[in-house]
Amino acid sequence: MALLICAPDRSNQQLAHDLSERLPNTDIRIWPEIGRPEDIVFAVLWKHPKDLLSQLPNLKAVSSLGAGIEHLVDDPTLASKAVPVGRMAGPKLALDMATWLIGRVVADWRVFDEHTHHQSQQRWVPETPRATPVIGILGMGQMGGQAALSFSQLGFQVLGFSQSGHGPKTIPVWSGDAGLEHVASQSDYLICLLPLTPQTQGILNKTLMASMKAGSVLINVGRGGHLHEQDLLDALSKGKPRRAILDVFQQEPLPAHHPFWKHEQIVISPHCASITDPQEAAERLAQSYEAVLRGEPPLGEVDLALGY
Amino acid sequence: MALLICAPDRSNQQLAHDLSERLPNTDIRIWPEIGRPEDIVFAVLWKHPKDLLSQLPNLKAVSSLGAGIEHLVDDPTLASKAVPVGRMAGPKLALDMATWLIGRVVADWRVFDEHTHHQSQQRWVPETPRATPVIGILGMGQMGGQAALSFSQLGFQVLGFSQSGHGPKTIPVWSGDAGLEHVASQSDYLICLLPLTPQTQGILNKTLMASMKAGSVLINVGRGGHLHEQDLLDALSKGKPRRAILDVFQQEPLPAHHPFWKHEQIVISPHCASITDPQEAAERLAQSYEAVLRGEPPLGEVDLALGY
Repeated sequence: MALLICAPDRSNQQLAHDLSERLPNTDIRIWPEIGRPEDIVFAVLWKHPKDLLSQLPNLKAVSSLGAGIEHLVDDPTLASKAVPVGRMAGPKLALDMATWLIGRVVADWRVFDEHTHHQSQQRWVPETPRATPVIGILGMGQMGGQAALSFSQLGFQVLGFSQSGHGPKTIPVWSGDAGLEHVASQSDYLICLLPLTPQTQGILNKTLMASMKAGSVLINVGRGGHLHEQDLLDALSKGKPRRAILDVFQQEPLPAHHPFWKHEQIVISPHCASITDPQEAAERLAQSYEAVLRGEPPLGEVDLALGY
Repeated sequence: MALLICAPDRSNQQLAHDLSERLPNTDIRIWPEIGRPEDIVFAVLWKHPKDLLSQLPNLKAVSSLGAGIEHLVDDPTLASKAVPVGRMAGPKLALDMATWLIGRVVADWRVFDEHTHHQSQQRWVPETPRATPVIGILGMGQMGGQAALSFSQLGFQVLGFSQSGHGPKTIPVWSGDAGLEHVASQSDYLICLLPLTPQTQGILNKTLMASMKAGSVLINVGRGGHLHEQDLLDALSKGKPRRAILDVFQQEPLPAHHPFWKHEQIVISPHCASITDPQEAAERLAQSYEAVLRGEPPLGEVDLALGY
């Protein structure tokens, strides 16, 4: 029996090492050195080649190496295998995301950049008090739910949106097209933490932006596919939103000549809002592997048909 | 009976208006139009003239218009009157302070400035994961205690220091010189939220900075008097701390030619980390006034002898 790591765009040596410390008697392999395909019972995947899974007759489960699973949904072979699928969205990842979002919101709300500018001019300019902003969060899963709770604990009013209408008990959650428009229209900061599915593809489009508050800020930490990029450029020119804070893009790395780079109303970060902690990842994957050997599903099990 | 507002460096019309809405039958006066001094039973003070209180024979209580009371401790007439003293440190003010501090820490830890720099060069540079920093908080009163809890809820390890050794139950709190050195030596971000008293005057000095971690950050949101400014300049040149984030200064506004303005390792904001919410202030002061009429102390009662 063996565990396979296949994440072609990453260096996987450290993960293999951290896993072997937790699973000392396990045969851990790194793609493309997969050895005898019949041995592999558990695969840790990130943007794997689409001909991989059909070669693994004894696969019992897979786990995404990230929080997203759209690279797994894309693979029809996986669906046909009907094995359980897990993902890497532990409590630490969700807290890190919430913390990053709070940092971004506070830096904007409390005008850190203005203070930097005034300091460069050696000017003491008191800050005009502005009301605590309303935070809208699209997506009430592990990541969105934690962000909602963390903002709420700091005294922010939080409005949630999810396809199902479910979310943390203390957060008001809307659903449906009217619910989406309501949340967008009431939020000073609108944050996308949805899973990427056919239903949410392009959800950040001109219809949604037209319903946003003048002067509000759009934050996308979901997936690049959620945002209609041309619609954003048009909307920014109208001030709805006033600014976009983007951590994810249709194409990553963002191409050198993309118009977002030099746009004064766009803040770019290189898909880093939540960075999987290597030790937490190894720990969760080791636990998933042991669960799978016991006939249980891996940690963070998702519904491949729903896409999250 | 009358309520007096005396805050010579502020405009007080709005506060008087907000108070009159809550206390419709109360005679509210704004210094210097104090009217008959015998009428005044409650005074709301911020840097009042030191000859004021001796003119008010029937004063029953005072409240600071801010969270600090060092401008009251400075007035020997107040001590001789032996009236109860309140201050303006409500839960909202404490949460706002905690939120601002989280924003400042996250902006530094998660290198927002580096991302801005890379964006200006149209370069996609992945962020190197860095461990969640340890937060040291000096002062475990309402402000420091809330900051400790808020950082802790986000998964940061928090070390507290207070003169008494008291603090929130879930936070480890040190006291004494050895405790101060311990907290300073273990913290990646060291935050001063102490009251300004003879014991804490100049507490952020070369001894403390020498015990800080190399590469750490010092944040002063207490009072300018806590920081020995020349010691900081010397310490920054040695990288302990790596950076100072300062919201308060010995002299405010910070004088135009002060060396802090152009120092690359110093981040300056104009005493704005927590801004008293006008509505919360009016509400608390109205409640304090009513309490005083009932013979009770004003909200946020402090010990003038302790200085907090």
